[in-house]
Order: sequence, then C-alpha cells, then structure tokens
Amino acid sequence: GMDGAPPAAGPAGLSAFVAVSQLLGLTLLATTGAWLGRFRGGVAWHGPLQFNVHPLCMVLGMVFLQGDALLVYRVFRHEAKRSTKALHALLHGLALLIALIGIVAVFESHRTKGIPDMYSLHSWCGMAAFVLYLLQWLLGCGFFLFPGASFSLRSWYKPHHIFFGIALFVLSIAACLLGITEMLLFNIRDSYSQFVPEGVLANTLGVLLVAFGLVVGYVLTRDDWKRLPLAEELALSMDFKTLTEGESPGGGT
Amino acid sequence: GMDGAPPAAGPAGLSAFVAVSQLLGLTLLATTGAWLGRFRGGVAWHGPLQFNVHPLCMVLGMVFLQGDALLVYRVFRHEAKRSTKALHALLHGLALLIALIGIVAVFESHRTKGIPDMYSLHSWCGMAAFVLYLLQWLLGCGFFLFPGASFSLRSWYKPHHIFFGIALFVLSIAACLLGITEMLLFNIRDSYSQFVPEGVLANTLGVLLVAFGLVVGYVLTRDDWKRLPLAEELALSMDFKTLTEGESPGGGT
Repeated sequence: GMDGAPPAAGPAGLSAFVAVSQLLGLTLLATTGAWLGRFRGGVAWHGPLQFNVHPLCMVLGMVFLQGDALLVYRVFRHEAKRSTKALHALLHGLALLIALIGIVAVFESHRTKGIPDMYSLHSWCGMAAFVLYLLQWLLGCGFFLFPGASFSLRSWYKPHHIFFGIALFVLSIAACLLGITEMLLFNIRDSYSQFVPEGVLANTLGVLLVAFGLVVGYVLTRDDWKRLPLAEELALSMDFKTLTEGESPGGGT
Repeated sequence: GMDGAPPAAGPAGLSAFVAVSQLLGLTLLATTGAWLGRFRGGVAWHGPLQFNVHPLCMVLGMVFLQGDALLVYRVFRHEAKRSTKALHALLHGLALLIALIGIVAVFESHRTKGIPDMYSLHSWCGMAAFVLYLLQWLLGCGFFLFPGASFSLRSWYKPHHIFFGIALFVLSIAACLLGITEMLLFNIRDSYSQFVPEGVLANTLGVLLVAFGLVVGYVLTRDDWKRLPLAEELALSMDFKTLTEGESPGGGT
C-alpha cells in the first residue's frame, strides 16, 4: 500500500514467493542431474549419452530460464524499464539457445540410433512450444525493443505477449512431463509399477516442475504484485497518451 | 465500451471465441470416442473394456465440463450473479461426479488385471488435480454459496479461487496428455514411431486438448472480457463496502 512503506521495498510476500521459486528451480535442476547421473549413465555430447543432453537442456532452458525471464519485471520492480526489458529479452534468448542445443542433441541421438523423429505427442507439444517461443521472442523484440512500433501498437500487443508468454511457459512444462513419462516407459517399463527408485525420482521431478510453474504463475498473475510504472515513466506515458489518439482515462489498468 | 452499444450484447469477439471453444470441446469428445471406439474396442463398465471408461470420463468431466464451468461468468454476463454462480457450482459438481466414475473405472480395471495403482506420473498429477479440484469446489461452496462468509473474506479469497481454478484446469489437461502418452506406449509401443493412424489420432486429441485450454484460458484472462457488475449489484456492493471496514476506493479492480 501507499501507507508509508519505503518505495524501494517490494510488496510483502513477493520476496518469499520469489525465493521459493528459485529454490524449486535449483532443486529441479539438481533432480534432473541426479536422475541422469545416477540412473542414466550421465551426460556427454559424443556417444550413447548424447540423448541425456536433451532433458537437461530442456529443463534448464525451457523451464528454469524461461520462468526466471518471466519473473524479472516482478523482481527488478524499481529498476528502469529499459534495463529490465533488456534482461527479460536476454534471459529468453539464452533459454532459446540452450533449448536449441537440447533439440539438436535428441535429433542427432535419434539419427545415430535409427529412431524416427517427431512421432510422439511429447515431440509435437515440445516442438510447438519451442517454435512458438522463438516466434514470441522475435515479436517481442520487434514490438518492444526496436523503436519502430507506435505506443498504441505496443499497448495492443502487450496483453497478448503476456498471455502467450505464460501459456508457452505452461506448455513447456507439460512437454517436460510428457518427456519424463516417455523416458520412464522406454527405460523401466516393467519395473516402473514396482515403485523403483528411478520411477519415484522422475515422478518427483514432474511434481517439482508443476510446483515451479504454480509458484511462478502465482507471482506473475497476482494483481497487487504487478510492476507499477516509476514516477518518470508515468509522466512520459501521460505525455504519449496526450500526443496520440485519445484513450479512455480509466481504461487499460 | 460505453459508447452506445446495447447493454445485452457481449464484447466484440467474445462470442466467436466461446463458439470456437465449444466446437473444440465437442471435437475433443468425438475424437476421444473415435479413438476408444475404433482402436480400443469401445467402452463398457463390465469386462475388459472397463478401462476405457476412464479416458472418456476424464476428458468429459475434468476438461470439457470443468472448462465450461469456468466460462459461465463470461457467457452469462448479463444474468443475475446468483444464478450464474449456481450454474458454475453445478457444472463443477457434475464434472467432479463424472471424474469420480472415471477414477473408479481405472481402479477396478487395475484390480481385475492385477496392475498396481498410483505409481505413474500421470496418476500422481491426475489424482492431485482431482483431489485439489474437489477441495476447491468445497471451499468455493463454503465461501461463496453459503451466507456465512463476510464480504471482506470473500474479497480476499476470490482472486485465489480464480488463480487455482485456472491452474487446476491446466493441470487436468496436462494429466490427460500424460494419460494419452501412457496409453499409446502401453498399447502401440512398437508401431507408434511408424506414424500409425491410432498414434496420429491420439496425438491429435492431445493437440485439441491444448487448443481447448488455450482458447478457454484466453477468454477467462482477457481483461476487457471480464464480467462487470450489473447496476443493481454495484449499488449493493457499495452499500456493503460502506457498512464494512473501509477499503481503498480505487483498489481491487
């Protein structure tokens, strides 16, 4: 509220939720590493362990980094919009690069083993998530980073960018859950139903992925945690609104 | 906008999106039926086809009916809140009942075939979705249908009810995708990678589930499509706010 809290502090509770999200994020990376290291022989680019690069890169890029890129407007709420926006684009770019490495890994591994590509629901959902994520990143750069787009065009695109951003994050997590299920049914099909340690560990990774998505989604969508414009940004945007065609004064909160 | 449109019409575009959601919903029911009927021998409560009751009930209850229950505040935006709320609770109740039948079906089918329960990521996610959905329904009835809860308690719970409502709908869809992947890998493990018709059809069902979730999610979260209080509700709520402890006049939009 406006009742005397110093302007540099975030809303109560936000920091705690962000801390939990980062703990969950690191835990899910560690759990992925433990699964691949302890039960799947480890990770290597060359040779039969190349496949394992895939789950590691997808969890790191499409979940952890994508999620953290979504959080920057909540975490750095008192930084200038320009720098926060640059960090947002940079983290998403890094996430895309790491995801691309993970996709190359599975295609190369399939080629080596003679396994067909893109037949499973996991591959359909995962590839859709990656391609649309790349498209969303390009559109975001075009609308918000380059100076060409008008104020009204940006205002129209922004809610769609936010909706599809969260939707693609959720689809990425769903694709990871499908990948976990595929890996388990290909590798431990007969012992999975006996609650063997690998199955329980991989299921736990799935639960952690869902929990990470829930906490990040909660932080992003909570109304009173949204980033408010800084005083100087507000003044600038008022000038812009006066200069451009009229909008209803109360609209677009 | 307020610029002369008759009050009984919804916002432009909303009807089209709702129509698309219903087309998608019916298509995914038909696709589920086609998969079970054409490739899995059909559906029956007694005998070896009992398992097939499970996917049919879960898609109908946890996806189609749950999604439609979420949409009622957008579709019936000019009906009295009381009746819309009753329909919302009723549809969720029906969804829960149908989902329960689907859960009983898979437990009985497992018992008959001697298959262990609750070992897979699908079962963990699906059971979590069902139990939390039931809890959310009970909390919703307690807070919003029975007259005991105060205005301020309802105001506090409402955004959480909405967030978890959408989150559980998304988790339900994710659980269905996991179930599709499990069924395919148990039944057509060796021919799945050859793009056989059953695999392509079931993948298509997965894509339809994602599309249904996207369209429903878009309709629910679009800011200018939210249900506005009717004139008489607004007056009543003003009276309530004056009677109860003060809230900031501009807050809680």
